[in-house]
Amino acid sequence: MPQFADRVAKAQRSFIREILKVTADPSVISFAGGLPNPAAFPVPEIAAAAAKVLYEAGPSALQYSTTEGYLPLRQWIAARYQKRMGMNVRPEDILITTGSQQALDLVAKVIVNAGDTVVMEKPGYLGAIQAFTIFRPSWRSVPLEDDGPDMDALDRALEGAKLFYAVTSFQNPSGLSYSEAKRAAVAELLHKHGTFFLEDDPYGELRFKGRALPPVCKQRSEHSMLLGTFSKVAAPGFRLGWIVARGEIMERLVIAKQAADLHTGSLDQMIVHQFLADNDFEAHVARIRDLYGAQCRTMQAAIAQHFPEGVRVTDPEGGMFLWVTLPEGVSATELLKRSVDCKVAFVPGAAFYVDGTGENTLRLNFSNADSQTIDEGIKRLGACIKACLDGAPKACKGA
Amino acid sequence: MPQFADRVAKAQRSFIREILKVTADPSVISFAGGLPNPAAFPVPEIAAAAAKVLYEAGPSALQYSTTEGYLPLRQWIAARYQKRMGMNVRPEDILITTGSQQALDLVAKVIVNAGDTVVMEKPGYLGAIQAFTIFRPSWRSVPLEDDGPDMDALDRALEGAKLFYAVTSFQNPSGLSYSEAKRAAVAELLHKHGTFFLEDDPYGELRFKGRALPPVCKQRSEHSMLLGTFSKVAAPGFRLGWIVARGEIMERLVIAKQAADLHTGSLDQMIVHQFLADNDFEAHVARIRDLYGAQCRTMQAAIAQHFPEGVRVTDPEGGMFLWVTLPEGVSATELLKRSVDCKVAFVPGAAFYVDGTGENTLRLNFSNADSQTIDEGIKRLGACIKACLDGAPKACKGA
Repeated sequence: MPQFADRVAKAQRSFIREILKVTADPSVISFAGGLPNPAAFPVPEIAAAAAKVLYEAGPSALQYSTTEGYLPLRQWIAARYQKRMGMNVRPEDILITTGSQQALDLVAKVIVNAGDTVVMEKPGYLGAIQAFTIFRPSWRSVPLEDDGPDMDALDRALEGAKLFYAVTSFQNPSGLSYSEAKRAAVAELLHKHGTFFLEDDPYGELRFKGRALPPVCKQRSEHSMLLGTFSKVAAPGFRLGWIVARGEIMERLVIAKQAADLHTGSLDQMIVHQFLADNDFEAHVARIRDLYGAQCRTMQAAIAQHFPEGVRVTDPEGGMFLWVTLPEGVSATELLKRSVDCKVAFVPGAAFYVDGTGENTLRLNFSNADSQTIDEGIKRLGACIKACLDGAPKACKGA
Repeated sequence: MPQFADRVAKAQRSFIREILKVTADPSVISFAGGLPNPAAFPVPEIAAAAAKVLYEAGPSALQYSTTEGYLPLRQWIAARYQKRMGMNVRPEDILITTGSQQALDLVAKVIVNAGDTVVMEKPGYLGAIQAFTIFRPSWRSVPLEDDGPDMDALDRALEGAKLFYAVTSFQNPSGLSYSEAKRAAVAELLHKHGTFFLEDDPYGELRFKGRALPPVCKQRSEHSMLLGTFSKVAAPGFRLGWIVARGEIMERLVIAKQAADLHTGSLDQMIVHQFLADNDFEAHVARIRDLYGAQCRTMQAAIAQHFPEGVRVTDPEGGMFLWVTLPEGVSATELLKRSVDCKVAFVPGAAFYVDGTGENTLRLNFSNADSQTIDEGIKRLGACIKACLDGAPKACKGA
C-alpha cells in the first residue's frame, strides 16, 4: 500500500463523535453532545423561507455562486455587529464558510506551517484541536481561570507563537467567559507579541445573564480573525458560518476557500437570509436564551442536590455547557464506564487538553434535554460520582 | 506582519473565477464558465421536496448529522452504480462531500505530502490543480490523445508517483474520454506501479452519444477513489458530491472530513434525496443530455462555419466542454483580449497545464447558452481568430 500523507498518520476520529454513537441508545440520557435544542429550530419559518426563495429566485438559488458568499447575508451579518457591538465590520470583511468548522480548517491552512506554535486554551475546543492537528502545529496551552486566561501564562505562551485561538464567551467546553478587563489585557498582549489571533464566538448571542461584552477583536483587529455561526441561532444543519477578516488575510482565506469547496451552498445562504429578513430575530434569539438559561439553572440546581462535596462546577453566563472538575486523582474516563452502565453519558475532559492533563474533568451539555431529563440524568451521574469517590464496585442498582 | 503558511505563499485566485467577473457584463457572450444550464434545474420539484422534508422530518432536517452523510442518499448512490455500471458499491463505501471540490481537498490532505509526485492530465482540471497546489506537490503531466492518455508517457510518469488524477469521461477542459481499451490499460499500469488513483466523474451521466463505459475504478478499486456529484444532474448550488473509497482510505477521509466541516448540510442532502425518490431521474437526466447534445452540435456546426482552417476542435460524446487548439504560436491569452472587445469570452487553455505550455489552446463551454447565442458568439470568436491569424490590429468593427 502506498503511504498516506504524514498529516493524517496520527489523526484520530473525534472521541466525542464516537461517544455520540454509544448514546444513540434512546434509554441513555446524554449530556455528551453539543447539540442545540431542536425545539428551538424555527421549522415553519424556514419552510416558508425555502418556499419563497425557490419561488422568487428560482434557478439562481440553485446555481454556482461566489466564493465570498451571498452578499445580502454578508450585509446582514455586518449590520448585526454594528448593532450589537458597535463594531465597524463591512460586508466585504465577511467570508461565508461551510460552518465554523470550515473556518478553522481554512485559518489553519493559511496560517500554520508544520511545527509552528499554536496557543490553545486549557481546556480548549476539540473541533479546533482537530482542525489544527491536521497541519501539525507545536502546541502550547494556557490555563483558563474563572474570568479568562492566566495572563502571565499567556504572555509566556505568546512569545514566538504564530497563532492564539480563543473562545472568549461561554467557552466550549468550560462555559467560562473572558471579563472586560481580561479582554483588554489580551488585546494588549496580542499587540505586544504581534501574534495572529483567531477568536471564535459561536455562542455570543446566547447570553442568559450578565452584561454583553464585545469580542477582543473589536479592540485588536489587525492580524485577527473573528468567527461566527448560524448553527446556534438558526440551525446547524445548514452548515453556515463566517469569518471576519481583512486585507491580506482575507485574500488568502478566499483562495483557500475556493480550493476547499468553491463556495458554501447557495440555497442554504438564501434560505437563512430570507428567514432573517422575514422574522423577528431578536425575539427568536430571546426564546433560545430563555430556554437555555432555564435548562442551565435546572442542571445547576440538580448538581447542588446530587453531586458530592469536592466536585467543582463552572457558573456560565450563557452558551450550552457546564464544566465539572472532580477531586484530584479521580478519572472521568473511568467514571464514564460506570455512568454508561447507569444510562447517562458525558464527555471526559482529557480530549480538550493538548498537554495530556485534565483527566479529572468532564463536560456537561445542558441545551439538549428537558428539565425532567436533566434532573434524572444528574441524579444518576451524582450516584456514579459518589460510587467512584467511595471506591464502590457498582454505581447504580438494576441499570 | 506575521508570516502566512508556506502553502498559500504562492496561491492565486482562480483565473476562471476572475474571468467570470469580467463576463458579469450581460452584453458579453460567455463560453468561459463551467455552469450547467439553469433551464435544466428542477426548481418546482426541488421546492416540493424541500417542503416535504421540512414538513415530515422537521427539526431533524436542521440538526447536526453524521460525517459520512445521510444514509438514504448514500444508498441511492450505491444502487445507481449497481444499476448503471454493474459496480459493487456499498453505502458504507460512500462519503458525502460538500461538492466534488471538497473531495479534491480531502484526498489531497490525506495523500499528498509536500514534494510528492502527482500525475495530472495535460490539459487537466483546474479545480484539482488548485486543490492539490495547496499541498505543494511535485507535478508530472501526461498528454491526452483523442482516446485517453499517451500510455507510454503515463507509464513513465507513474514511476515513483504518489497519485494519478484523471477525469475519464468528457473531461474538463478537453471534452475527451478514455476508450474502453485505454481504461483497461490504465488499470493495468496503476496495478503495476501501485499508485493511488483518483478518478473524477462529474459528467458521466451526461453522455449524449456513444456507448456508456464504466469508470476505471470498476477494474482497479484498490488504492482508488472515485468522485461523483449532483451538481450536473440536480443543481450545483447544493454543493453535494461524494467519494467512493474503502478501508483505510475511507477511514482517513472521514477523519479529514470531520476536521474540515463536520458534515455536509443535512437539509441539502435530504432535499436532494427526496427529489430523487419522488421523480423520474432517468427522464430528468435524459432531458439534460438532449439539451447539452443539441447545444454541442450547434456549437460544432457554428465552428465549422466560422472558424478558419488550421484550428482543431475536439468532438466530445458528452459533458459541457469543447477544446480548441489554435495553430502553433497563436496565443489564446492574446485572443481573449481581442475577443473581450468583441463581447465574447472563453478560458485560455494555459491555466489547465501544470508545465507552463498550452498557450495556443482554449476551452469553450456549450452547456450554458441557447442556440442563437452560441451561433452569434462563435461567429464573433471566429472573426477574432481570423484577425489574430492575419495579424490584423482589430478583430471586430464597432464593438
